[in-house]
Amino acid sequence: MSLKATILDKGLEGLFVQATIGIEKEGQRVDQDGQISQNLHPKRFGSRDFHPYIQTDFAESQLELITPVCGASTDALRFLGAVHEVTIRQLAEDEYLWPLSMPARLPESSAILEAQMADEDRRYREYLTEKYGKYKQMVSGIHYNFGLSPAFFQALASEKGSLTETRNLVYMKLARQFLRYQWLLIYLLGASPLAPDRYFEGGEALDSPARSIRSSRFGYVNEPHVHVSFDSLDQYIKDLRHLVDTGDLIAEKELYETVRFRGAKSVKDLPEKGIEYLEFRLFDLNPFAPYGMTPEDARFVHLFLMGLLWIEETPDYRAGLPLKEATALAHPLTPAADIAEAELVFEALLEMAEQISLSVSDRELLLDKRSQISQPEKTVGGQLWQTYEASGSMLEVGLNLARSYKSAVMEKPFGLQAFSEMELSTQAFLADAIQYGFAVEILDERDQFVKLTFADHIEYVKNGNMTSQDSYISPLIMENKVVTKKVLAQAGFQVPESIQVTSLEEAEQVFSLVCSKPIVIKPKSTNFGLGISIFEKGITDKGDFLKAVELALLEDKEVMVEDFIVGTEYRFFVLGDETKAVLLRVPANVIGDGVSTVKELVAVKNTNILRGDGKSTPLKKIELGELEQLQLKAQGYTVDSVISEGETVYLRANSNISTGGDSIDMTDEVHPSYKTIAVAIAKVMQAKVCGVDLIIPDITLPADSSPTSYGIIEANFNPMMMMHIFPAKGTSRRLTTDVLKMLYPEYPWSS
Amino acid sequence: MSLKATILDKGLEGLFVQATIGIEKEGQRVDQDGQISQNLHPKRFGSRDFHPYIQTDFAESQLELITPVCGASTDALRFLGAVHEVTIRQLAEDEYLWPLSMPARLPESSAILEAQMADEDRRYREYLTEKYGKYKQMVSGIHYNFGLSPAFFQALASEKGSLTETRNLVYMKLARQFLRYQWLLIYLLGASPLAPDRYFEGGEALDSPARSIRSSRFGYVNEPHVHVSFDSLDQYIKDLRHLVDTGDLIAEKELYETVRFRGAKSVKDLPEKGIEYLEFRLFDLNPFAPYGMTPEDARFVHLFLMGLLWIEETPDYRAGLPLKEATALAHPLTPAADIAEAELVFEALLEMAEQISLSVSDRELLLDKRSQISQPEKTVGGQLWQTYEASGSMLEVGLNLARSYKSAVMEKPFGLQAFSEMELSTQAFLADAIQYGFAVEILDERDQFVKLTFADHIEYVKNGNMTSQDSYISPLIMENKVVTKKVLAQAGFQVPESIQVTSLEEAEQVFSLVCSKPIVIKPKSTNFGLGISIFEKGITDKGDFLKAVELALLEDKEVMVEDFIVGTEYRFFVLGDETKAVLLRVPANVIGDGVSTVKELVAVKNTNILRGDGKSTPLKKIELGELEQLQLKAQGYTVDSVISEGETVYLRANSNISTGGDSIDMTDEVHPSYKTIAVAIAKVMQAKVCGVDLIIPDITLPADSSPTSYGIIEANFNPMMMMHIFPAKGTSRRLTTDVLKMLYPEYPWSS
Repeated sequence: MSLKATILDKGLEGLFVQATIGIEKEGQRVDQDGQISQNLHPKRFGSRDFHPYIQTDFAESQLELITPVCGASTDALRFLGAVHEVTIRQLAEDEYLWPLSMPARLPESSAILEAQMADEDRRYREYLTEKYGKYKQMVSGIHYNFGLSPAFFQALASEKGSLTETRNLVYMKLARQFLRYQWLLIYLLGASPLAPDRYFEGGEALDSPARSIRSSRFGYVNEPHVHVSFDSLDQYIKDLRHLVDTGDLIAEKELYETVRFRGAKSVKDLPEKGIEYLEFRLFDLNPFAPYGMTPEDARFVHLFLMGLLWIEETPDYRAGLPLKEATALAHPLTPAADIAEAELVFEALLEMAEQISLSVSDRELLLDKRSQISQPEKTVGGQLWQTYEASGSMLEVGLNLARSYKSAVMEKPFGLQAFSEMELSTQAFLADAIQYGFAVEILDERDQFVKLTFADHIEYVKNGNMTSQDSYISPLIMENKVVTKKVLAQAGFQVPESIQVTSLEEAEQVFSLVCSKPIVIKPKSTNFGLGISIFEKGITDKGDFLKAVELALLEDKEVMVEDFIVGTEYRFFVLGDETKAVLLRVPANVIGDGVSTVKELVAVKNTNILRGDGKSTPLKKIELGELEQLQLKAQGYTVDSVISEGETVYLRANSNISTGGDSIDMTDEVHPSYKTIAVAIAKVMQAKVCGVDLIIPDITLPADSSPTSYGIIEANFNPMMMMHIFPAKGTSRRLTTDVLKMLYPEYPWSS
Repeated sequence: MSLKATILDKGLEGLFVQATIGIEKEGQRVDQDGQISQNLHPKRFGSRDFHPYIQTDFAESQLELITPVCGASTDALRFLGAVHEVTIRQLAEDEYLWPLSMPARLPESSAILEAQMADEDRRYREYLTEKYGKYKQMVSGIHYNFGLSPAFFQALASEKGSLTETRNLVYMKLARQFLRYQWLLIYLLGASPLAPDRYFEGGEALDSPARSIRSSRFGYVNEPHVHVSFDSLDQYIKDLRHLVDTGDLIAEKELYETVRFRGAKSVKDLPEKGIEYLEFRLFDLNPFAPYGMTPEDARFVHLFLMGLLWIEETPDYRAGLPLKEATALAHPLTPAADIAEAELVFEALLEMAEQISLSVSDRELLLDKRSQISQPEKTVGGQLWQTYEASGSMLEVGLNLARSYKSAVMEKPFGLQAFSEMELSTQAFLADAIQYGFAVEILDERDQFVKLTFADHIEYVKNGNMTSQDSYISPLIMENKVVTKKVLAQAGFQVPESIQVTSLEEAEQVFSLVCSKPIVIKPKSTNFGLGISIFEKGITDKGDFLKAVELALLEDKEVMVEDFIVGTEYRFFVLGDETKAVLLRVPANVIGDGVSTVKELVAVKNTNILRGDGKSTPLKKIELGELEQLQLKAQGYTVDSVISEGETVYLRANSNISTGGDSIDMTDEVHPSYKTIAVAIAKVMQAKVCGVDLIIPDITLPADSSPTSYGIIEANFNPMMMMHIFPAKGTSRRLTTDVLKMLYPEYPWSS
C-alpha cells in the first residue's frame, strides 16, 4: 500500500502533519561598507565550545545561527528571530548582518580570518580551504532539519515491519523525492544571482546572472566525480564509506549533497540506529526576510516535504538533477523549467491539503506558490533581481536591508520581539540566556515558565527570577506582612511597630497605643495603594482614626496600624549576598524649558522608546487624564501652562511606574550601609532574590541603630527587574544576567 | 506623681494593659486508684534536658507544664491547654493527671521516685528532700509569670529617670503590693483544704480543714527564720545574699517567697540588668479547671496585678502577711478575713477599669469576684469543700474530675482543641512539635504559619508541610500541569500524552490525533472535578469530543486532552527519599448486615469520632442528599432498603473524602516498585514533600516500562496529611512527625 493510502486508511492525518523542525542559518558580519568584518566573534556570545545557538561557520565573521528542534516551522522561525535579535544587539556599532547568501564584496583571500575554533575543527577547516578555496566558503545559506513524529512511525510500523526499518524506508523515499523535485524549491526560493569580484578566481566563471549560483555547480560543491547513490540506505553507506576510504573525502561530512541523513555519528550505524531526521541544505537566504527565511516559506517547505512523501516515486530520482542545475543557472526572471511537472506537483500538494484537512492558510500558501510557476517575477529570486535592477548595486540592496533589520531590532532594546507575548523580564532573561549559550526551552509561554540547560545542569525559572535557589517558605513569609514583621523583628531589625485590627471595636481599643504617633493605616494585603491613610504628623482625633480604619477594612478583613517613618522609599534589589541595584521611583513629571506647555513636554517625554503601555515597555507613557489635571491644578497649572526652565512639575502624587513615574537608579549614590541591611533582611527572609523597600531619610548618611535611621516597608519576592535594567535615569543594572550567574556559578563567566 | 496619675496624664492606658504572661503548672501523674504513678516520665516527651513545655518537678511523677511567654492570659491558658492535651494523650492507659494541688494519697516516702534529671539538678533536689521532706514536695501549684510592656516602661522612663531604674521601682512596688494583698487571692482561689495521711509526718499537724494548706506555713515553705526585706531591691539582694552566704539557703532559688524577681541568674545583677518580670508562685490548682486555672481567673490575676500598681502603697507591706496566714488556714466556707479592705481593693479595681476603659467582660469579672468577698461558697475553695462534703472522699472528687478531663481529650485524638481555629494538619503538627519539645510560636493563626525552634535552629512551617526544605520552583512546577508533564516526560516517565487546546477550532484539528484512544478531557487548572469528561472506551464521535471540550472550556481557557489509563488511583505521600504512606480513596459507602436500612447503616457509620464536618475531623459524615439518593436509585435501593449482609452499597460515584468517602491505608499492600517511582517523581519535581497520584491497574504486580503499567495523574505540593494520619481503615501514618524529622535531623529522635 502506498504511504498516502496507509495514512488515509489508518487515519494518520493528524500524526502526519506533526513534525520536528530545526533551522541553521549562516550569515556574514559585514562593516558599514559591506566588507566582511575583520572583528573577532564577539566575546559576549560566550564560548563556541558549547554555544547551542550562536556559532561560526568557515570564517570568523560567518555566523551560524541555530534553532533548537521545534514542533512547528513557526516556532523554529520565532526562535531564529530571537537568536537574531540577541546577535544583532551584540554587533559592533558599525557592523551588520549581511542578508544575502552571496557576499557583495570579497577581500583578498588572506584577509579572510578563519573561524577561531578548537584545534581539531581548525585542522579540518584548513583542509577544506585548501581544497575548495576560501571564497566559496563565504557563501551562506539555510539548512532545514526535518523529522516526522515518532508516533507516526509507530502507527506505520505495525503495518510495515520494524520501527527502525519503517523509519529508514520513509526517510530514504523523502531524500530521493527531494533530489527529484528540489529544482522547484530552487525556482521558488533561490536568490543568489550575482557573485562578487574574485569569487570565480582560479576556476570556471559564470558570466550571466543566475537564479542561485549557490545551488549550482558554481556553489560550494564536491568535485564532479564525488557521487553517492540514494537508491537504498545500504548503497548510500557503501558509496560514502568508499569515498572516505579511498581518500576522495576526508570524512563523511565532506559530502555536500543537498540532503543529509542525521541520527548517527557515522552512516554505518544508521541501519541499526535508524535515521532520526533529514537535513536539507538547499536554501539561499531570502534577503527580504529579516532572518533569511519567511515563516510562510518555512511552512511551505514543510508542506512540500509532506507532499514529496504523498506523491508516488518516479522510476529514478536522478531525473531531477539536470532540472536542478538548469533552474539554478537560469536567469531569475525565467519561468519554471518544467511547468507541466511543477503543476503536477502542486496538484498533488493541493489534493493532499484537501484529504488531510489542512488549514485554509496552508492551502492559500500553496496556491500562492503555484501561481509563481509561470510568474518568475514573484519568486524570491525574481524579486531580488528586480530590486537589484532598480538600484543598480547589489551592495546597496544588501546594505539597505541590513541597516533596516538592525534598526528594527535596536529600536526595541528591552525585550525579545519574538517572545513579545511573554513578560518583558522573561524576554530579557531569555535574551541573556540565548546570548550566553544556555539551552532554553519555553515550558509554558503564558505562565512565563522556562527551562535552562547548561551541560547537564537543568534549572527551571518562572517570571524571570523565581527559581530553585529560593526556599519555598521564603515567598510564603514575604506574602504575609504580619509574619514578615515578626520574623524581621525577632531577627533584631527595626520594624515599624504594627497593630492588627479586624473591626472598629478593636480599633477603638488600640487608639491610645498609637495616639499622637505618626502612623500609617493600611489593609493587610493589598498592593495597589487602596485604603491606605497616612497621618504623618501623628494622629490625635479618634474619629479620623476610626474613619481611616473603616476605609482600610473595605479592602481587607485585617488592617495594620503601623508606625510611619519619614523619608523616601527606595527599592533594593538583593541577589544572594549583594544588593545589585537601588532604585528611586519618582511620580510622573516634566521639567520645563520656558517655552513648551505641559502638554508639549509630556508629548516629548513620551517619545522615549522606553515609554509605552508599560507592559511591552519598561516605562509607561504619561497620560493627561483627570487625576493628572487635578494634580496640575493643585499647583496652579493646566495642560496648556508653559513651565519655566528647569522647573519640575509633577503630574501624579503617587510614584508608581505604572502611572508614568520615573525610575532612577541610585545604586552608586546610596550609602553602602543600607545595601548591607537589605542583604541581611533578604537573608532573614531566607531569600536569594528579594526586593527590599526601605524608607530612608538621607541616603548619604550611614544607617545607625536609632529608630528613625531607616524603616522597613516590606520585602518582596519575584521583584520587578525591568525598571532596574532600563531606568528612566541612571545606570542600567542587568539583573537578568545576575540571576543567570546565581543559577550557574560553574559557567565560564569571565570569558 | 503617682503611677496612676502618670498613666492618666501621659495617656498610657493602652500600654498599661499590655502584659507578657507565662504559666507553669505542676501536677501529679496518678494511677486509677489516685496513687502517685510509679511509671517513669514518658519517653515520647523527648528529653527533659531541653523540653520547653513538659518537665518534671521534684518527683518523676510530678509533671511541670510550661507555657511560652504570651501577650495575654488567654493565650497562655490556651497554650497550657494544648500542652495538657499533648501530655494526657501520652499517659499510660491507667494514668491520669491529678487535678488538685494536694495529693489524695501519699505512699511510703521511699516509694516516691525522685525526678530522673541531670546530675547537678539531682544533687540540689536531694539536698531539698533531706531538708524539707518528700511529702511537702508532692504538693503542686501554678506559677504565674507577669511582665509589663517595654513600651510602657519607655514612656514612663522619660518621666522618672533611667529605664532600668524605672522598671525596678515599678516591679518592687508590685512585689510589695502583692505581699500586702495576696491574702485576697488566696481567699478567692485557694483550694487545698485537706492533706492526706503521712503529710504531716514528723512535724506539726493541722487538724481542721483549711482554705489553702499549700499557702500556709504547712505548705512547702522556708524555715521560719528565713526572711528577706522587699523594702528596696538593694535590701532584698543584701538579705538574700546573706542567707546564701551563711548557708541558711544553699542557693538563691531556695527562697520560697510567693513572689520572685526574674531577669538575671543572680539577684546581684538585677540593679544593672533590671527586673524582667515577676514570678508569682501563690496559686493552688483549681480542680474545676481542666488545666488548673480558668481563663477567667488568669485574666482576673492580670487585672488584680494591674490594680496593685494602680493603688497607692500603705506604709508597710508586712501588714499583709498575718492576713495571708489567717486566710490560708481559715475554713473554706469562712468569708474574707478583712471584708472592708477587700471592698476597698475592689473599689479601686473597678475605678481603674472605668478610667482606662477596660472591656465590659473585664468589669463583670471584677464584679463577680467582688461578690465572693462575703460569699465564700462561691470561691474555688468553697466550691471544692462543698463538692467534697457531697462526696465524702477527696480521692473520689479528684479521680472523677481527672477521668472526665482525660476522656474529653481522648474523644478528639486528631487535633488540638486549643488551636481548633487552625487546620487539623497544623493542629497535629503543633501537637507533635509540643510533644517532642520544639519551641513553637504561632506567627499567623489564620494563615497556618508556625515557627519552630530547637537549640538555635529555626524553621518556619506553613500549612503543616510547606517548609524551607522545598525549593520555590517546586510548587510552581506542580501548580502547572503542562509544565509538570513536560518535566516528567523529559525525565523519562510514562506521562499520559496530552494535547492542550484553547478553542473548539483547535479541538477539531486534534481530533484525528486522539480518535479511538481512551482519553480524558479536562480543564488545565481545576481541582474540583468540574468539566472533566472521561471516554474510557476510546472516543470515536467528533461531536461528543467537541461537546466535552466545550464543557471543559467553561472552567478554564485551556483544556487538556489526555490519554486515559485504566486502573485505580492511589495517593503516594512522599517525604524526602521515602514514600511514607499510600492511600486509596473509596466513595462513601455502607456495608449491609441483613437487618439495617441504608439510613441506619449511615447513622451508625457516622458515629465514628473521625467523622464530622471534615474540617475539624479527618473524615466527613455521609449525607443522604439528592446525589446520594440518585446513586442508591441507580442500584435499585432507597434509603429505607435493608442491605444484605456483607454487601457494599456506594452512596457516591466520586471518591472524595469531602463527600463522605473512606480513606484506606495501603502503604504495606502496594508493591514497592510504585513507591520507588513516586519518590523518583518527587525528585524530578525537586520536591521534598509531594503527593503523587498514580493510576495503577494492579498494585500487587511490580511496575514495568509498558505504557499501561501505571499512569501519573499529577503531583501535588502541600499534600493532605490527615487522611493518612487518621485513615478510615488501616494503619495510621504519623506524617507530621515525619515532617519534623525532615526539618530537624539533628534532634535525638531515637530517645
